[in-house]
Parts: sequence; C-alpha cells; structure tokens
Amino acid sequence: MIVLKLGGSVITEKDRPETLDGAALERVADVIAATRERAADGAAGNLGDEGLVIVHGAGSFGHHHANAHGVTTTDGTHDPTAIHDIHGSMKTLNTFVMSRLLERAVPVVPVHPLSMAHCNADGDLELPTGQLETLLADGFVPVLHGDLVAHAGEGTTVVGGDRLVARIATDLEADRIGLCSTVPGVLDESDAVIDEIDAYDDVADVLGDSDATDVTGGMAGKVRTLLELEGEASIFGADDLEAFLTGAQPGTTIR
Amino acid sequence: MIVLKLGGSVITEKDRPETLDGAALERVADVIAATRERAADGAAGNLGDEGLVIVHGAGSFGHHHANAHGVTTTDGTHDPTAIHDIHGSMKTLNTFVMSRLLERAVPVVPVHPLSMAHCNADGDLELPTGQLETLLADGFVPVLHGDLVAHAGEGTTVVGGDRLVARIATDLEADRIGLCSTVPGVLDESDAVIDEIDAYDDVADVLGDSDATDVTGGMAGKVRTLLELEGEASIFGADDLEAFLTGAQPGTTIR
Repeated sequence: MIVLKLGGSVITEKDRPETLDGAALERVADVIAATRERAADGAAGNLGDEGLVIVHGAGSFGHHHANAHGVTTTDGTHDPTAIHDIHGSMKTLNTFVMSRLLERAVPVVPVHPLSMAHCNADGDLELPTGQLETLLADGFVPVLHGDLVAHAGEGTTVVGGDRLVARIATDLEADRIGLCSTVPGVLDESDAVIDEIDAYDDVADVLGDSDATDVTGGMAGKVRTLLELEGEASIFGADDLEAFLTGAQPGTTIR
Repeated sequence: MIVLKLGGSVITEKDRPETLDGAALERVADVIAATRERAADGAAGNLGDEGLVIVHGAGSFGHHHANAHGVTTTDGTHDPTAIHDIHGSMKTLNTFVMSRLLERAVPVVPVHPLSMAHCNADGDLELPTGQLETLLADGFVPVLHGDLVAHAGEGTTVVGGDRLVARIATDLEADRIGLCSTVPGVLDESDAVIDEIDAYDDVADVLGDSDATDVTGGMAGKVRTLLELEGEASIFGADDLEAFLTGAQPGTTIR
C-alpha cells in the first residue's frame, strides 16, 4: 500500500489566500490516473494491486484561516465560527482535489479528519483506521487532508497532513510513503538533492524553517517525522510523481 | 447527554428532490438555540450541562440520489460518481443545518459518517466515538447525518440516521433520545398519539410502511430500533421539540 502526500504548496498558490494552482493539480491528477490505468493493464508499478491513500496539505486554504484565528497544532479554538472557517476551507480544497480525480475515474472517497480523529489531553492523536482499511479493500482511494481535530481541553487544534501520513502509514503498514513537494527533494548547501538521509544529524545544518506560512512545520519537521517511521519514504518534486508511483525512488529517500 | 434526531421529512420537502424546508429548519434551530441559552442561564432543561448530539435525516437530499443509483442499506455501490452524488447531497443538507445553528451561536461541529464509520462483511456497523466524546466534553454539539459508509464487499451502503442515533445513544450512554418527526408521535387506528410503547406487538397492527420514499425504513423501523435501546426514547412532532429539550416526554415514549 502507498501513502501519497500532495503538498499544499504543490496544489495551491501558497502565498495567495484560498487560491488553487489548478494547472499543477491537473498535472498531478493526470499522473495518478495514468499510472493507475497502466498498473491495471499489467504494466510495472504498484498501484494496481496495492492500494493508494492520498493526503493533501492545506496550502493557502487552511493555513490562511488558521493563522487568522490563531489556531495551531497546540493552541486550539472553541469558536465554532473559526472552526467553520478553517475546516470549511479545507473541505473546499478537498472538493477541488476530489473533482479532478473523479473526472479521471480515480475511485476517490473523501475522509475528513475532523470527523474521524481526536487528540487526548496529552496531544496524542487517536485515529481509527477501520474505515480506511474497508475502503482500500474495496478498491477505493481515500483522500484525507490537513484539518482541525477535536483536542481535549483545547477545543480543536490543527493536525497537519504530514502527521496524518505518518500515522496512517504506520497503522496500515504502508509499503511506500511519498511526499510530493515543490522542491525535488531535501537540498544540501549547494541546492543539490541529498539522495539519502538516515539520521537527522546528517542534515541538521542545512534544514531551516519553511519560507511561507506553515503552521505544521516545514522540511525539518517532515524529515524528523519520516525518520521515525518503519518503512522508507521519498521526498520528491511534482515532476517525479510518475517515477515514484511506478516504483522508483526519486528525490531524497529517508530510511 | 441527549441524542436528538431531526427527521429528514421535518427539515426538507421530502417529495421534491433536494428541497430544503427552510422555514421548518429555522424554527427547529430557534428552539435548539433558545433552550440552550435558557439552560445556560440556569433555567430548567438538560441542555446546559449534559451535552447534545444532533443527527439529521436525509429527506429529499440523500434519498433521491440513493434511489437514482439503486443504493440501499444492503445493496452497495462501488461507483465513485454515485458515492459523490449521494454523499455530496448529504453534505449540502448538513451545510444548511450547520449554518442555521451557527447563526444562532450553537457550537456545532459537522461529523460525516462516511469519514468515521464502516460496516464489516456481516453488515455490523463499526462506529468509533472517541471524537464525539472529545467534542462533547469540550462543549461542542456534533452534527451527524444519514450517509453512505464503507461496507466490506459492497463498496458503500446507506446508513440511516435512526441507526446512527441508536448506536451513538448506546455507546455514549445517552440519558434521553428524541426523534423529532413530522407526526406528533406514533398514531393508533384513529390517529391519536399512543403515549407509551413497551413491545412491538402492542403496535404491530397499526404500523405500516412510510408513505414517501425512504430507503432506511419508516415508523415501524424507528419503533423496532428504539425498543432495543437501554434508555427511553420519545417520538414527537416539531411543535413538541421545546418540551422535549426542556425535560418533558411529549409524543410517544418508547421504553
């Protein structure tokens, strides 16, 4: 099974509130649909028999509203209007993603984290996966997204797409994890892609914060999260999505 | 804790596809908001301290599309477009319900069954409730609705609002269960409200099928479902919603 994260920066104009990058989303949807069709026809690639879960980021949709309302992964809100703004904007983005994939006959089903998950008072994420396993077994492609979740004592807090990817990959024992990003991988001091990362110390001096607004952390957080997983993960650019989906390890591999 | 079902026939024009009964929904929202405010001010009524879960039916939204695609509680669909039509129409109705309650400062949070629940191959409904408990403990009013759910081997099937009410009431040990309907209760041969029902045999000769299209069963199914529950349930008309929410037992009480 493959868990694929579509970075919010890939599919939205991250610096303009609630602005889709429609052309980028179309290209991503084309690749996902084409690799599924080829896999179903017996060509190389894992998508035909192994299943796919997609998680997309918030980009300029959720982040914009989360910032406006001062909501983060630890500081929550009890304001129903704030919740409606943030969660509603993520549903809007999810609807765009869903429609582009449905148009290409990818059997997507939306799964909204606010409906399914919660954090306890210690911030531990509880995320039942029975619905995902059932959807996968029946051939569907569940599509989740960064969202708000109920958080004991905090009202609701942000759960980022990367955290969802890590939890789902672990709980469903994903064979492969891919983070499709705006950069072609984790870059070194001279902006060359680092092929492999085995420990955070290897890259601690080159990983800063992400440039644009991102309440759920930038590349440093992604690498930290992925290093904690059992399986291998790849961070790659949108141009390498087809390579990843057909079995290659483009970009940076994190073990 | 109170579990309140808002019948699909109460808040929609059930015989006209995708038509809201806006005036009826406004009245229901007014009553819910007003009884919550009075309870918060210390007046009689359970809403201030006990919490409220709302489940609304499908009415002319989900049923219309479920019929068009031939999807029932047992016959499912793997067609992503059918799923999108049915689930999407329920989200549209949910958005109407949410907005009317948000306008009145009721702290509602949408919870979509397709995201949270599934049925195994035997049709048993698995419905994790940790997110509902967390939302309730933080003062929110979760709003669920009849929906599709993943169903092992069937793709997705319909889960009716009444079944959701029964499961949530049982799992969260609800103190009171109310079904707000278009009729003032279960009616006898002369259309008088039956005050109490203790066994299905008491009413087997007066309960027929519901008149309009309803893939999840009419009054007979409601009574059967409610009789299986531990707690007491009331079936009443919209005019009695305030009485129910302030502690009375209007309409028919099912033990």
